[in-house]
Amino acid sequence: MPETLNVAVAGYAFMGRIHTAGWAQAAKFFGTPARVTTVIGRNRENTQAFADAFGIPNVLTDWRDAVADPDIHVVDVCTPGDSHVDIAIGALEAGKHVLCEKPLANSVEGAERMVAAAEAARGRGIRSMVGFSYRRTPALAYARQLVQEGRIGDIRHIRAVYLQDWIADPEFPLVWRLDKDAAGSGALGDVGAHIIDLAAFLTGHRLTGVSGLTETFVKTRPKLAEQTGGLTAKGSTEHGDVTVDDAAVWVARTDKGALATFEATRFAVGRKNAMRIELNGSKGSLAFDFERMNELEFFDFTQPAAENGFRRIQVTEPEHPYVGAWWPAGHGLGYEHTFTHEVKAFTDAIVEGRDPEPSFADGLAVQKVLTAIEDSKGNWVSL
Amino acid sequence: MPETLNVAVAGYAFMGRIHTAGWAQAAKFFGTPARVTTVIGRNRENTQAFADAFGIPNVLTDWRDAVADPDIHVVDVCTPGDSHVDIAIGALEAGKHVLCEKPLANSVEGAERMVAAAEAARGRGIRSMVGFSYRRTPALAYARQLVQEGRIGDIRHIRAVYLQDWIADPEFPLVWRLDKDAAGSGALGDVGAHIIDLAAFLTGHRLTGVSGLTETFVKTRPKLAEQTGGLTAKGSTEHGDVTVDDAAVWVARTDKGALATFEATRFAVGRKNAMRIELNGSKGSLAFDFERMNELEFFDFTQPAAENGFRRIQVTEPEHPYVGAWWPAGHGLGYEHTFTHEVKAFTDAIVEGRDPEPSFADGLAVQKVLTAIEDSKGNWVSL
Amino acid sequence: MPETLNVAVAGYAFMGRIHTAGWAQAAKFFGTPARVTTVIGRNRENTQAFADAFGIPNVLTDWRDAVADPDIHVVDVCTPGDSHVDIAIGALEAGKHVLCEKPLANSVEGAERMVAAAEAARGRGIRSMVGFSYRRTPALAYARQLVQEGRIGDIRHIRAVYLQDWIADPEFPLVWRLDKDAAGSGALGDVGAHIIDLAAFLTGHRLTGVSGLTETFVKTRPKLAEQTGGLTAKGSTEHGDVTVDDAAVWVARTDKGALATFEATRFAVGRKNAMRIELNGSKGSLAFDFERMNELEFFDFTQPAAENGFRRIQVTEPEHPYVGAWWPAGHGLGYEHTFTHEVKAFTDAIVEGRDPEPSFADGLAVQKVLTAIEDSKGNWVSL
Amino acid sequence: MPETLNVAVAGYAFMGRIHTAGWAQAAKFFGTPARVTTVIGRNRENTQAFADAFGIPNVLTDWRDAVADPDIHVVDVCTPGDSHVDIAIGALEAGKHVLCEKPLANSVEGAERMVAAAEAARGRGIRSMVGFSYRRTPALAYARQLVQEGRIGDIRHIRAVYLQDWIADPEFPLVWRLDKDAAGSGALGDVGAHIIDLAAFLTGHRLTGVSGLTETFVKTRPKLAEQTGGLTAKGSTEHGDVTVDDAAVWVARTDKGALATFEATRFAVGRKNAMRIELNGSKGSLAFDFERMNELEFFDFTQPAAENGFRRIQVTEPEHPYVGAWWPAGHGLGYEHTFTHEVKAFTDAIVEGRDPEPSFADGLAVQKVLTAIEDSKGNWVSL
Repeated sequence: MPETLNVAVAGYAFMGRIHTAGWAQAAKFFGTPARVTTVIGRNRENTQAFADAFGIPNVLTDWRDAVADPDIHVVDVCTPGDSHVDIAIGALEAGKHVLCEKPLANSVEGAERMVAAAEAARGRGIRSMVGFSYRRTPALAYARQLVQEGRIGDIRHIRAVYLQDWIADPEFPLVWRLDKDAAGSGALGDVGAHIIDLAAFLTGHRLTGVSGLTETFVKTRPKLAEQTGGLTAKGSTEHGDVTVDDAAVWVARTDKGALATFEATRFAVGRKNAMRIELNGSKGSLAFDFERMNELEFFDFTQPAAENGFRRIQVTEPEHPYVGAWWPAGHGLGYEHTFTHEVKAFTDAIVEGRDPEPSFADGLAVQKVLTAIEDSKGNWVSL
Repeated sequence: MPETLNVAVAGYAFMGRIHTAGWAQAAKFFGTPARVTTVIGRNRENTQAFADAFGIPNVLTDWRDAVADPDIHVVDVCTPGDSHVDIAIGALEAGKHVLCEKPLANSVEGAERMVAAAEAARGRGIRSMVGFSYRRTPALAYARQLVQEGRIGDIRHIRAVYLQDWIADPEFPLVWRLDKDAAGSGALGDVGAHIIDLAAFLTGHRLTGVSGLTETFVKTRPKLAEQTGGLTAKGSTEHGDVTVDDAAVWVARTDKGALATFEATRFAVGRKNAMRIELNGSKGSLAFDFERMNELEFFDFTQPAAENGFRRIQVTEPEHPYVGAWWPAGHGLGYEHTFTHEVKAFTDAIVEGRDPEPSFADGLAVQKVLTAIEDSKGNWVSL
Repeated sequence: MPETLNVAVAGYAFMGRIHTAGWAQAAKFFGTPARVTTVIGRNRENTQAFADAFGIPNVLTDWRDAVADPDIHVVDVCTPGDSHVDIAIGALEAGKHVLCEKPLANSVEGAERMVAAAEAARGRGIRSMVGFSYRRTPALAYARQLVQEGRIGDIRHIRAVYLQDWIADPEFPLVWRLDKDAAGSGALGDVGAHIIDLAAFLTGHRLTGVSGLTETFVKTRPKLAEQTGGLTAKGSTEHGDVTVDDAAVWVARTDKGALATFEATRFAVGRKNAMRIELNGSKGSLAFDFERMNELEFFDFTQPAAENGFRRIQVTEPEHPYVGAWWPAGHGLGYEHTFTHEVKAFTDAIVEGRDPEPSFADGLAVQKVLTAIEDSKGNWVSL
Repeated sequence: MPETLNVAVAGYAFMGRIHTAGWAQAAKFFGTPARVTTVIGRNRENTQAFADAFGIPNVLTDWRDAVADPDIHVVDVCTPGDSHVDIAIGALEAGKHVLCEKPLANSVEGAERMVAAAEAARGRGIRSMVGFSYRRTPALAYARQLVQEGRIGDIRHIRAVYLQDWIADPEFPLVWRLDKDAAGSGALGDVGAHIIDLAAFLTGHRLTGVSGLTETFVKTRPKLAEQTGGLTAKGSTEHGDVTVDDAAVWVARTDKGALATFEATRFAVGRKNAMRIELNGSKGSLAFDFERMNELEFFDFTQPAAENGFRRIQVTEPEHPYVGAWWPAGHGLGYEHTFTHEVKAFTDAIVEGRDPEPSFADGLAVQKVLTAIEDSKGNWVSL
């Protein structure tokens, strides 16, 4: 084990940027022994500009060069989903630890190959993790802890939605996320994947079947003229077909007897990043909304009825997961902290020689649920 | 048309009590020309006590006597669902206007007979209405108005839940609402019916199919020892089977292209009467929670993004439906006001010689959806 | 003691209307043995119309006739403040129990005479009460109970505001509430009085001194052309002087060592009836907002920090004050219920032969604080 | 002007840590041409450890060495208040740009000397700024923009509180912040200073006088045994006197006719970092709570009453101040981002050759208000 792990980040857009910042912050605030030494991007000029701004010494334009470099210990895959299979498997086979952004792959078949590669690498002490970063939100990590301590008892209901509105305007153009070949699916895979993973993470339940519907409300859109950064873009006058879903809804049962409802959409106007999940158990309830990510609502059914109610926990106390490294109570964290926590947790596992979670197998499980929902068309699909 | 309509209320429990108070308040605050002159209950002593407390001159123990009384103009049916068919049809055939509590009937067949009777009576100028009282919540009546004015545009999402927790304790006894013969169904028919009706009322959309699941989490309960009033009761040591659902979840499509999710449950601990509905359209969104019944959240997508957000409308302005008769802005109304508004609206229709809404046919439509959900078991049922 | 108390209500505007409805509802829901038999108003025609709508048998145009009537047991004074002294003292001297709306009087001197009359009448078993109806909000009555049980410990902070906006438009006309002769004072006496009384009611502390400021933001307004009901009115082109305050702010200390801040205003645009009070003690905190009158926020400082937070209690449980007579949990009450509870509590005291609270002396104490604030001009005034 | 400004940070505790991280993040996300090359701390070992973790090349134990170093362009003063005067004046006189944490100084006299030094340095192109970082919260910067655009009209009310509870437990020990010599004052200077500055920043109004009260609820506390980091500490069995206020409340008038109320406390149990400010104007209102720092409530009084309400703006749109550099809408920022924005703004001013805000004179103005409140004892003090 080297004293400091050298990390190569593949991709420098939204995810590459936030991962890179996360590695630097983790070193400062958690003492995480890792640093980004390389960034990989196909366009050398843009990649170099990113490297300069973020203080990264090396730039590569082909991930194979990173995989071949013996000084690189970790590959952090932040590219679009269609390249995950090749990069992750290549890196694992070359003996690099791999953190791979979600979705693990754009198909079940690809995800299965990645799981196999991860399993083989595991025998050689190589670690892999899929980047369901929301698990690292302190409020959600704390929610899981309350569930595991039995504070909400037997879970009867899971109620999860992920509501956005960034393509509600029909003039929003055909970006790569609306193209099935590049993105795999639409709202379902992009944000629905998160709530499927979180439901599993928080409850420990497994979905045994689903029945769902998907819809594309706006069938054609202006072709992309210019990507202006982030989730904003400008369209041309020519139109093309939207080949992914705009929204998906599904109901499910779990192996421990709960009923679940889910919804993923990019058409909930006014909802910007409303990843909401509520659990109702025999002893209590938990409710969370990412738009208020520093809060967790907890109802403790064992308290006297007259004085009982959902309590708004500010998950900013030193006792809360990850929070001790940061600021005093009431001084909230932001979206990007989840990535700092994620790379810290991944590095901890590498250093301590254990398998991090969520594994590639967890990523595959999510992929199978997504496929079942797409296949369902309102009928039951067992899992 | 008599100067004042004489009303006979059948039943004096929760619903009878609130209807009776509603008739009196409507006369005072809206000048509604109607008064309760008769209450009908099987137990004469209890019925007389109620009549004394509420200032009702006449007591009857058989609804047939009310139907036969030429001085009674309106029958308000507040008994459990298994008696609705007989009383309502009897009253309609005798030429009484009928307000019937929901659910219209415990079966589609019964509801169909009631619709036929209502249709026949309608030819003779006799009015009928089903008591989906939540339509009379000012915030929801105002929400509908905004929808009808096109303020939220084409509706893409309906997201409705009705969450309660009053039987979450497994020691809560086997009250009549947990008995299929008396109640027809459980959470589905009791509170699920409301959100099905409201979705239709607010959007004007019709469900074209559903896929749903129901569950009974607690299969047996202590038999009822003593009904102590309201929703509280005490159980005995002997147990019996729960024959209705504890919860139901379903997804649906509408005739105008929306996706919908619904959930009705009595096991959402901490949620007391969380009837929540959110609509997302192409121009805006609306969100409501009955636990804050004087508020409506409105997002107007046509406003500039930087200054936009869900606005919390206090639906307590004189311009809002029903509100002008009451108090200054910010001085909220309560649950029972919806019934005052309901009887006012019903009486207005009678006086003005038009058909009130929701009709018995609307009640039947809800019943058909409930039946489809029960039949679905996770598979698609077209409507 | 007669079997049923006959009540004469003086005034039929906002307060007369809501009191009259309250007496009827109290009889129905609490079995309160009292009924309004007489309404008193100077304009016979309008008074008769009110009596007809609300089912009151007798109409009088002079309160002296009510006082002289041996069949009347209770006088409920709902007229503007400038007539309170005469009516209340006249009624007390004639042996009638008196419920008098707040403010007790428009001057300390008047209030002192009323207290003396009440004290004299008390010796003859005659009861008197001032109508601080907000004390009857279940959430606030429950808050007091928690304070009295020691749940928030030693109180360090009282933070109370009463925010309205109904005259924020400078074209809103010169209604009687903006005239010092009729109203006594402006926001200070109208709504500031409520938060002074509530602070005392909830905490049991007494203010030992205040320092405050008042302001009239809009100095002249259109003279009143037409009162259109409630708090809405239309103005003429001629202007007159506003002779009361638009807003008042003050800080205070209490006899038990707390610091307090208060604000009363009619210029907080967007705040309709935001009577908010928060208490911070050594063991907990309580927070309330009348715009969400069915909720109470409670922070129990004795709970473990990690899982702690303000809990939103829905004060709709049968155990909560006054609530058992109404509806199931989560089915909220409205503004007018506070008056139903008030007349119930007043009648209970009469029937049980004890002095009700708040007494006229409590009303005088509030009046003295109001006068001190008006005199303060930013300097300390001891009480 | 050098291509990159070299920054020396004095102090490595709470503030030094967050400033240092801020400089690094500003370089990455805003391309700010500055980097921390030196950290100054009295304890060499601890300072070196901090430097290692945060990647800072140089460590100094005496600020005079930094001031004497020609390669240092900026001194960022993050030490306790009692050392600000010496370090800031020393640095300014040596031609370094100075960013100084608030409070500017522990006395008006010290602050006046700093203002004079800043004024003299200004003539030589040397910039200075006081660190009221909350101005850099996007929601508050946006609020100011709305005020400046006239969206809330003439401001009538300022209502600001800063509520914390970290010393509510009487066993919390005597840390330096409770010692007048080190800290200057208690809640008043620590958090009260922020709301005084913000009121000025947001409204452009100047306080013309105040009347206030301060209180120390817990007079003695365990002497400090061990500082365990952040705001947590352990006490010994020996007690000492608390020499600063625990809480302060005050009312004020402004030069443009507004009434204002303020409260600063460390005894509001359950409130962790509730810096709340509300403005009510003739055309609208704004409300903010730092516990939900990514949100701003806006009421636009020019909209139709029936559809109006406070709207919850998620201040996470690219159009909002500072936000464009970060993440998509709905992906909130955290407390530390305000410091990243602060150093970016300071550097921008240096690079562009203009004076940054808030100036040392702004810091002095706050100091004068604090002194007036301490002197007031409930009586009016003109400013």
